[in-house]
Amino acid sequence: MLENLNKIRETHPVIHCITNYVTINDVANVILATGGKPVMAECKDEVSEITAVCNGLDINMGMLNRDKIEAMIVAGKTANQYHIPVVLDPVGCGGSRLRKESLKRLLEEVHFTAIKGNISELKTIDDFNNTTIGVEVKKEDSKLSDQDIKVMLTRLALKYECIIVSTGKTDYLSDGRTSYKVCNGHAMMSLFSGSGCSLAGILTTFMAVNTTIDAALEAVVLNGLAGEKAYQLLEEHQGSATYKIHYIDSLYLMDSTTLNKGAKYESL
Amino acid sequence: MLENLNKIRETHPVIHCITNYVTINDVANVILATGGKPVMAECKDEVSEITAVCNGLDINMGMLNRDKIEAMIVAGKTANQYHIPVVLDPVGCGGSRLRKESLKRLLEEVHFTAIKGNISELKTIDDFNNTTIGVEVKKEDSKLSDQDIKVMLTRLALKYECIIVSTGKTDYLSDGRTSYKVCNGHAMMSLFSGSGCSLAGILTTFMAVNTTIDAALEAVVLNGLAGEKAYQLLEEHQGSATYKIHYIDSLYLMDSTTLNKGAKYESL
Amino acid sequence: MLENLNKIRETHPVIHCITNYVTINDVANVILATGGKPVMAECKDEVSEITAVCNGLDINMGMLNRDKIEAMIVAGKTANQYHIPVVLDPVGCGGSRLRKESLKRLLEEVHFTAIKGNISELKTIDDFNNTTIGVEVKKEDSKLSDQDIKVMLTRLALKYECIIVSTGKTDYLSDGRTSYKVCNGHAMMSLFSGSGCSLAGILTTFMAVNTTIDAALEAVVLNGLAGEKAYQLLEEHQGSATYKIHYIDSLYLMDSTTLNKGAKYESL
Repeated sequence: MLENLNKIRETHPVIHCITNYVTINDVANVILATGGKPVMAECKDEVSEITAVCNGLDINMGMLNRDKIEAMIVAGKTANQYHIPVVLDPVGCGGSRLRKESLKRLLEEVHFTAIKGNISELKTIDDFNNTTIGVEVKKEDSKLSDQDIKVMLTRLALKYECIIVSTGKTDYLSDGRTSYKVCNGHAMMSLFSGSGCSLAGILTTFMAVNTTIDAALEAVVLNGLAGEKAYQLLEEHQGSATYKIHYIDSLYLMDSTTLNKGAKYESL
Repeated sequence: MLENLNKIRETHPVIHCITNYVTINDVANVILATGGKPVMAECKDEVSEITAVCNGLDINMGMLNRDKIEAMIVAGKTANQYHIPVVLDPVGCGGSRLRKESLKRLLEEVHFTAIKGNISELKTIDDFNNTTIGVEVKKEDSKLSDQDIKVMLTRLALKYECIIVSTGKTDYLSDGRTSYKVCNGHAMMSLFSGSGCSLAGILTTFMAVNTTIDAALEAVVLNGLAGEKAYQLLEEHQGSATYKIHYIDSLYLMDSTTLNKGAKYESL
Repeated sequence: MLENLNKIRETHPVIHCITNYVTINDVANVILATGGKPVMAECKDEVSEITAVCNGLDINMGMLNRDKIEAMIVAGKTANQYHIPVVLDPVGCGGSRLRKESLKRLLEEVHFTAIKGNISELKTIDDFNNTTIGVEVKKEDSKLSDQDIKVMLTRLALKYECIIVSTGKTDYLSDGRTSYKVCNGHAMMSLFSGSGCSLAGILTTFMAVNTTIDAALEAVVLNGLAGEKAYQLLEEHQGSATYKIHYIDSLYLMDSTTLNKGAKYESL
């Protein structure tokens, strides 16, 4: 029984996001739809004060620049100091030296509660020589077996002492001891910008009320199930933009009973 | 009879916005739906030229950084020089030293035509020792009486020689002599990101054609009424994302007759 | 027979965008709906690596700042070096000295495959003394004859050795030898923010698979036709926000047959 959604809707955790401008509006709306209260701030002179009074911190590496990295480090350290959960979304981290170096610094200076990426991004965390193009998964990476992925996720989870979530057609997560495979979701989620960033926002909102692997599982299920409901609502003359609206609506309308009924996952 | 909406739709005032990236797209679309023409620019090397040929300036303190503050000061002074109305939205101004210091500078160096905030933000303007978390209203602040709010708004309006608008479940506004209470609006407006920023955009568009308290009242009524219409359009399977779409649609479709018929306000 | 849309949907070109934050999310979603894969990056320390592995580069001058200009120059030169198509959208380029100077530098240091602007923006490219307000077309500029526009577009196309696209109620394009007039589109496209930026994204996606004038023509037709379809879908209680959703949906749902059937253009 996954039961953190109710807790979110009772406590409305405040989620500080340092995120990219492409999907920043979606991330804010997705956190609100989940039941959290987003606050966006990224000036290094104020992030420490903002993080200190929040319940969760979402660090998203999309559209990185040097000022933002400094703010991420300051905010991340503050979160660690006050035992506030921090989630890392290493967007396109294999795409440039800047992103790889920043990723290294973040992983060295901040302890993350959870890291969420696609397989190619996680492979870059596993091996900094792995290079990617944009935010896409490389062809060879999309062919890994359940077992291959479980082994990599477990290794990363143990190394960084955190929950690792890998997203794709099928999602996987591990805290180093327990691993899950999640089959919720829909192919149309990759046809609007920001479904990955949205999951990071949802995941942070769940971590803000409970930092267990089961809370992370619930976040992944919620996200995927909202994608499924969105597709069910889609009419013939509607496309990817309406689909995104349905997706956020479905997050907003989701209740704990529907979530548990629709959850499709198994232990690995 | 509130009659500035027609004037906006005849003259299409150009509104220069320096605003946060979370809701910048909504602000642009809301200004267009109201009848204005938005232009966004925030590099201090060009804002003066942009402001000088506009009809209104909207300064929104969300996602503040040091470069943006300088641009806000330059643009604000230019607006004052050319007698162009300026609206301040002091987003989360009690959340950090940076925001408080920037707010002080803005209030000292720029004369605002109107300032719009929630009660907690306005309390920070009233007393710089007031600290807030994110963009939320503090519990004790949401319990103020009509009379308490009127007294604070009147004091601020006289001190800063401007119109003060306070938003919340009920909205209030005052120019120091006349005060109104507005009961338009819907609770779902707080479930998407940017309804406050949107009102600031609408308010600036109204100030661009008329700087009276009645024009500000009309902006507040329009915003709230669009929120009500949006809810009426909402079907059972639709949530917060569709609601936002309906809200902007309702702004776009609003006419002066409907606005005056639906207005719910009283003098205080 | 316009046939590049199919090619886009088979090859999914990766499009690097350096664009403004007002419409950055729309641009990403429009590129996805067209069949491309957007990637946004604007830090000068990484853009070269990002551009080098992309199939097209979209440079949009909205919300310009000094850091971004440097990134645009670096990315543009990289694109030239690797023979990657580059599209320029000189948003509001007549609005400030900063934009005019940046435009000059871009035109001197980068060779563009295509430049897309409204008539007033193109007139600023033609004569740097031309000044504009915001992103609007000046009244006198909206009265030019087909022949006047053809002459200006041809002159600019030959001077900059690229395709020039002018947008407005009617769209025009020329590569210096062949010129087209396109009558697809709908007036409501100017009532949401970003239809110009969206066309630039679409155009870049087409240039990524084919740099001919006919591929540019197909991009302009697709954009306009999506605007027409969006209007056909609009119900009485729906306004400008729903219209934008319909527009992106229509891009997503468009197929080559519908596009060729609905295309309204002629040689000039």
